[in-house]
Amino acid sequence: MDTKAQNIDTKAQQLRSLHQGPAILALPNAWDVASARIFENAGFAAIGTSSAGVAFSLGYQDGQNISRDEMIAVIARITKALKIPVTADVEGGYGDPAETARRVWAAGAVGMNLEDSPGGQVLNDLDDQKAQIRAIRKAVPGMVINARTDIFLNSIGEEAARTEATIARLNAFLDAGADCVFAPGVRDLPAITALAQAIHGPLNILAVVGSPSLAEMSAAGVRRVSLGSGPMRATLGLIDRIAHELKETGTYKAMTESAILYSDVNKMFV
Amino acid sequence: MDTKAQNIDTKAQQLRSLHQGPAILALPNAWDVASARIFENAGFAAIGTSSAGVAFSLGYQDGQNISRDEMIAVIARITKALKIPVTADVEGGYGDPAETARRVWAAGAVGMNLEDSPGGQVLNDLDDQKAQIRAIRKAVPGMVINARTDIFLNSIGEEAARTEATIARLNAFLDAGADCVFAPGVRDLPAITALAQAIHGPLNILAVVGSPSLAEMSAAGVRRVSLGSGPMRATLGLIDRIAHELKETGTYKAMTESAILYSDVNKMFV
Repeated sequence: MDTKAQNIDTKAQQLRSLHQGPAILALPNAWDVASARIFENAGFAAIGTSSAGVAFSLGYQDGQNISRDEMIAVIARITKALKIPVTADVEGGYGDPAETARRVWAAGAVGMNLEDSPGGQVLNDLDDQKAQIRAIRKAVPGMVINARTDIFLNSIGEEAARTEATIARLNAFLDAGADCVFAPGVRDLPAITALAQAIHGPLNILAVVGSPSLAEMSAAGVRRVSLGSGPMRATLGLIDRIAHELKETGTYKAMTESAILYSDVNKMFV
Repeated sequence: MDTKAQNIDTKAQQLRSLHQGPAILALPNAWDVASARIFENAGFAAIGTSSAGVAFSLGYQDGQNISRDEMIAVIARITKALKIPVTADVEGGYGDPAETARRVWAAGAVGMNLEDSPGGQVLNDLDDQKAQIRAIRKAVPGMVINARTDIFLNSIGEEAARTEATIARLNAFLDAGADCVFAPGVRDLPAITALAQAIHGPLNILAVVGSPSLAEMSAAGVRRVSLGSGPMRATLGLIDRIAHELKETGTYKAMTESAILYSDVNKMFV
């Protein structure tokens, strides 16, 4: 085994073990090399990518409008620039999750998300989704697979039945070989606690407006908290404020008040 | 002439005429499609790209470390997504400014910057720099050329002689065919006013911390104010705050307090 292969296997083991505690895994999501480097420099043990963030940055709507090649190219740039493990958000796997897994691994990322509702409103058949997870495991044995159900995110099915349906689906994903399971759209602490207690493996929750803190999530049994497109959309909010201030008052306060110095950014990329 | 060629000629004329007043041209600088679209949506008549912003986003130090192909690819993505004219920051022209101009134009941008100190501390020979401007004009007659001197930005030469040297150089660039001339690093209103009075064509000033407002710049005779990497570095500051808040307090306020909604960002890319 060559050094590069050993290195990526080590990173996969690092990422996998970060799901076993004792500390909760806080996983910020990047969309370009600069955002990834800021997160790495802040001391995170691993980062994710945000498929929505990458798509927006390149001018696409979220939801598999970007090509797989373009998504993988951004992932490869990020892994090349970082020392810590990177897990890739590759949406529903672009029609061929096993081949996508091979490309993610070849791009230097050691984890991947797999969504079960790429169309937005209809869930993939559960047996098909389990078969996809098994196919990823077979194609790339070391991959840290984070299997996601969009029941809550996309408000699929009867509201009263969603918690039970989510638990059943996520446990089935774990049985099929997922390392972690992900329920974006679940926000309140009681709902999070109910999921964490019923799921027999690491649970990933997405932090959004009003989400419990990392400490509260950890106490509830959550193993991984990610940010999705939140940081990227925060930067878009700031750009919008910079734009409107320049347009309407002709000043630059939002731009200058807490920017990183040019010389300091340059040092990040030595 | 086909429709695409007519369209780009029209955009070049629009951008050129924006330098003639009566209003000052406020030109924010983008580094990816999302930032460009935010500026367009805010109502600006044109935007620039930031070479430093693009470089940082892709993981390079500023200063021609990025390849020309990578820089042009980002410019092409941005122009494809926008209706308004785009002027491209292509540093010192990557060793062949005329060929770079052809590629910038083919990528859909109608203006370009040309620096005179790509190495950082030494100015290009003035006759060579004038020859480069003429070569760009010959290669792409419609190009809106913004010729820049880095005398102040890089503190080149005796401090007492910099204003005179900058005036001489910028007027020589105008004589060689530049449409606008650019003196980044000049910040104070008296210095800006002195330059604007002595230069016989449109003057571009870079807005930084402490710069005069657009109204003050306009009254001083400045025709164009750009932001350089300021907006991009502001977003890096915000990402850094998001990262440290998550790491140190386990909360998400900096991320959520003024982000653009996911659904609203998606609508930008319909």
